[in-house]
Amino acid sequence: MTEDQLYSAILEKGTMLCVGLDPDYSRIPECVRRGRSVSEALVEFGRRIVDATSPRCVAYKPNLAFYEAYGLDGMKALDLTVGYIRDNCPGQFLIADAKRGDIGNTARMYARSLFETFDFDAVTVSPYMGTETVLPFLDYKGKFAIVVALSSNPSSADFQTAVKDGKPLYRVVMEKMMEISTPGNMMFVVGATKAAKLKEIRSFCPDNFFLVPGVGAQGGSDREVIANGSNAKGGLLVNSSRAVLYASSGEDFAQAAASVAGATARYPLLP
Amino acid sequence: MTEDQLYSAILEKGTMLCVGLDPDYSRIPECVRRGRSVSEALVEFGRRIVDATSPRCVAYKPNLAFYEAYGLDGMKALDLTVGYIRDNCPGQFLIADAKRGDIGNTARMYARSLFETFDFDAVTVSPYMGTETVLPFLDYKGKFAIVVALSSNPSSADFQTAVKDGKPLYRVVMEKMMEISTPGNMMFVVGATKAAKLKEIRSFCPDNFFLVPGVGAQGGSDREVIANGSNAKGGLLVNSSRAVLYASSGEDFAQAAASVAGATARYPLLP
Repeated sequence: MTEDQLYSAILEKGTMLCVGLDPDYSRIPECVRRGRSVSEALVEFGRRIVDATSPRCVAYKPNLAFYEAYGLDGMKALDLTVGYIRDNCPGQFLIADAKRGDIGNTARMYARSLFETFDFDAVTVSPYMGTETVLPFLDYKGKFAIVVALSSNPSSADFQTAVKDGKPLYRVVMEKMMEISTPGNMMFVVGATKAAKLKEIRSFCPDNFFLVPGVGAQGGSDREVIANGSNAKGGLLVNSSRAVLYASSGEDFAQAAASVAGATARYPLLP
Repeated sequence: MTEDQLYSAILEKGTMLCVGLDPDYSRIPECVRRGRSVSEALVEFGRRIVDATSPRCVAYKPNLAFYEAYGLDGMKALDLTVGYIRDNCPGQFLIADAKRGDIGNTARMYARSLFETFDFDAVTVSPYMGTETVLPFLDYKGKFAIVVALSSNPSSADFQTAVKDGKPLYRVVMEKMMEISTPGNMMFVVGATKAAKLKEIRSFCPDNFFLVPGVGAQGGSDREVIANGSNAKGGLLVNSSRAVLYASSGEDFAQAAASVAGATARYPLLP
């Protein structure tokens, strides 16, 4: 999928929403768990959420940890969930939230896993080990590396604000990564809870898409993110996970998820 | 496994060697591949390497990417390999080389996956997103987070030498991580190709174990690493992957692996 196709989907659906699939079994509604094994419940919950939200979002972001936690059955559930989205929701942008980041020959194996064995469009990458960690992902046409630049969690400032050549680390990371890539194969994670910084970051990175976590459960404002972070070609995927998935714990959970999704990250902004 | 038990194993076997299991199917000897599926070959290759090297090493480090690349069958092969080591090589320290690193609720899921579903003793963690990424791993008694501080790859200097409070990032990472942990639940990855730096790093981190990649195929010297990096309780795991695994591509591959393993990371150093 190209970034132009992604922008078309944003315009067509009127939203920049990416729904994060972090299915914590203990929070899956009782009506879904009843009579099902853990992995069956993960798959069924994913299907019901996807059916309800697909007209209201342009991307899904399964968080691999939440599937790996349940071992081989969990990985099978991930495989079925990805397959279900591919078969039933053409045009959705599929992100593996995996935060992989390792040396070249290992990164090549992760790329093979996530782009070939699983058919993801993009994978999140942790940049600590350098530009080498990203190169193998860039070789796939129509696929993206999404490098963590500035995250939205409380301890993000521990290391991401170290300085090199007079610039904060998150900027050094983005500039180095831009040198080896194009907006057609590289996006960045930029935390929404730092919305004030989005404008500044746009000034040195005008063209790439940003994946913005931290709205909803983590407290960021989707309107503020869109006002400060969007560009002429959209340029944003605004992620919400828990606020959508667990909007209700009752029988109406899918309807509630659809309702929250429909009210999140609308684009263009209405007055 | 405690760090004292690990030190006892080092003294008993006379080695600090950790064998990295990075089984690239295309490099597995023909005699192992013949008549076997990919995942069967991964498992059989792992068994033969483990049988040959277990008396000559104190740890194994499966690299998860090399199993994930083959999808669900690959993960099953990982499960069987870990199980084989647990059943046949009591006392081996088992490291999941996964470079996981994500926010708290996600890290908790990775910890569950690697410490409960799989029974690893330790997991490598990428620190970019802050101390929060590590906390859930520290809650498991007798298990370790192994945080990447200074890696051995060519692009490690892209970001790891940024400066905060007058110190290089790898030092900031280590000092922050030491504040929230003990040598009983925290180790660090310190690249062997920077052996000159090992002494300096020991000066501010005297007690923790270091996992040192980069000897063998990547060119670091195991003797130099041990001379500069060991401490009064051993304090080192010296990793070799490709140099051991692919010591020979013939029928004698296991014997060749044993021979390379036996000559690597001997401890204490002989004159």
